[in-house]
Amino acid sequence: MRILITGAAGFLGSHLVDRLLSEGYDVIGMDNFVTGSRENLVHLVGNKKFSFIRHDVSETIHLTTKLDAVMHFASPASPNPESPLGYPNLPVETLKAGSLGTFNTLDLAMKNQARFLFASTSEIYGDPLEHPQTESYWGHVNSVGPRSMYDEAKRFSEALIMAYHRTKNVDTRIVRIFNTYGPRMRLDDGRVVPNFIQQALRGEPLAIYGNGLQTRSFCYVDDLVDGIYRLLMSDEHQPMNIGNPTETSILDFAKTINRIIGNTSGLNYQTDKRLGNDPERRCPDISRARSVLGWEPRVDLEEGLKRTITFYKNKLGIS
Amino acid sequence: MRILITGAAGFLGSHLVDRLLSEGYDVIGMDNFVTGSRENLVHLVGNKKFSFIRHDVSETIHLTTKLDAVMHFASPASPNPESPLGYPNLPVETLKAGSLGTFNTLDLAMKNQARFLFASTSEIYGDPLEHPQTESYWGHVNSVGPRSMYDEAKRFSEALIMAYHRTKNVDTRIVRIFNTYGPRMRLDDGRVVPNFIQQALRGEPLAIYGNGLQTRSFCYVDDLVDGIYRLLMSDEHQPMNIGNPTETSILDFAKTINRIIGNTSGLNYQTDKRLGNDPERRCPDISRARSVLGWEPRVDLEEGLKRTITFYKNKLGIS
Repeated sequence: MRILITGAAGFLGSHLVDRLLSEGYDVIGMDNFVTGSRENLVHLVGNKKFSFIRHDVSETIHLTTKLDAVMHFASPASPNPESPLGYPNLPVETLKAGSLGTFNTLDLAMKNQARFLFASTSEIYGDPLEHPQTESYWGHVNSVGPRSMYDEAKRFSEALIMAYHRTKNVDTRIVRIFNTYGPRMRLDDGRVVPNFIQQALRGEPLAIYGNGLQTRSFCYVDDLVDGIYRLLMSDEHQPMNIGNPTETSILDFAKTINRIIGNTSGLNYQTDKRLGNDPERRCPDISRARSVLGWEPRVDLEEGLKRTITFYKNKLGIS
Repeated sequence: MRILITGAAGFLGSHLVDRLLSEGYDVIGMDNFVTGSRENLVHLVGNKKFSFIRHDVSETIHLTTKLDAVMHFASPASPNPESPLGYPNLPVETLKAGSLGTFNTLDLAMKNQARFLFASTSEIYGDPLEHPQTESYWGHVNSVGPRSMYDEAKRFSEALIMAYHRTKNVDTRIVRIFNTYGPRMRLDDGRVVPNFIQQALRGEPLAIYGNGLQTRSFCYVDDLVDGIYRLLMSDEHQPMNIGNPTETSILDFAKTINRIIGNTSGLNYQTDKRLGNDPERRCPDISRARSVLGWEPRVDLEEGLKRTITFYKNKLGIS
């Protein structure tokens, strides 16, 4: 069985590649390296089950190899407006990945009569008015707001995928991914986990934007990838939340990182530089993942952070 | 000044062509006739200010003529699942018109340093939780629901247009069009106005789906086109509602049509065949159109219906 993964050099994509290879599949990775890193795939050099194609998924994909599954994970994904890798600074690329990219990968799946799985996001719920979010919640999204290039591209993709499923009989799946962390998040992509860990490793106070009481539900990447793998193997066509339902405030999260690393510099409340329409709370209801996929997260925050910190220490050459 | 209008053979597009010609512009119409009709443009044969290109806007547009404005009006627009012209039966075409079509027309406007105006819709508000809807309302839309091919394509286009405006400096405008009626609505597109008028002209009872208490705000097409023309001439880049804020229940609307036509067969309550997620109420707040464009509707429902009924009588050869 051969699987194509777009965004294979990204944080999630590369972990997914590893999991699928470990399950015995042949994997073709695709990436244009706009936000993905070669480093994330370098350990696969020489692996005969893995091949790589440098390609922008917004351009038509010409592949003659027979595929059994197509997984579309290509997109900028950091909301940080201060990072050149944040989607606010790559708006047209983001909108193309979530429209042209979705057309191209769906067409490829259809041609191959292959399974299709799309990386959607909790951002399709926007700044939600219901907590926790079930898959039946329609969301609260500003179509012309500062996050719209990402949110609306993902929502558009969901609508497009359901159209292909309903009218062209494509065997589709949609995972709505909530906040995830772990090794290989880019240090420079401006998201909270690498930011906090870097600051703590440097012995600096951790920068808190806003009052720090906004909550997130952080899922360790291995758990997330396991949920996605189960969804791929299932026959579920409706969108599926995958994420960790344990809510943590940004403040508690920062304190935990400081404690694990032994950083005594504390916190530093700063002028809010977050992108507008930042949700105050976001937390998945994973009842459907539990019942349909038999999935729930297993790695707790403490354990996941330890593994992640070890990764960054190695990467930065800190003993 | 030369203006390209996509969807020029459609109900709104063709009225817009007429208005722009009457203002002295050169107009190029574009349509692929998936839902547009040649009939809507036949009166322009021989008009030297008008030319026509048969083209699917989802395909790259190669035009060497210099353009001063690009207006993107191409899309299926009827929600009726019983009509082959309804967008539920043209989901991929609808999603392409509102993504590839928007990319192509934006690129054309950018290349020409031309104004760009997009036909968005009140459907981006979905089944709204606020009444009336101001432009700042984010909407309530099901990204995987039965209307998602239309709603999400339009929302995606809005996000894309703002991205081009903000990062590529394209001189864009977005009109959110509420329910509109008038001459040239297709008899077979399944929308309520042509349906009611046809039934009344045949002396049949008017078919009411649901309890008929759901309200709509019907704007006469000449008023709508005037609002769009003013928006094109303005420097307003944020979305603008254009519609008639007078709410009418479907029931009252049906009774008015029966009265004007003199149809004594009354109403016929039928099993609800409407597309799911049909909004119970939708009504524009047009404060911004009033203050920014100096626009408000002038044709009342009675007068607008009389003109529309006259058109259908002529079309059907009824004296």
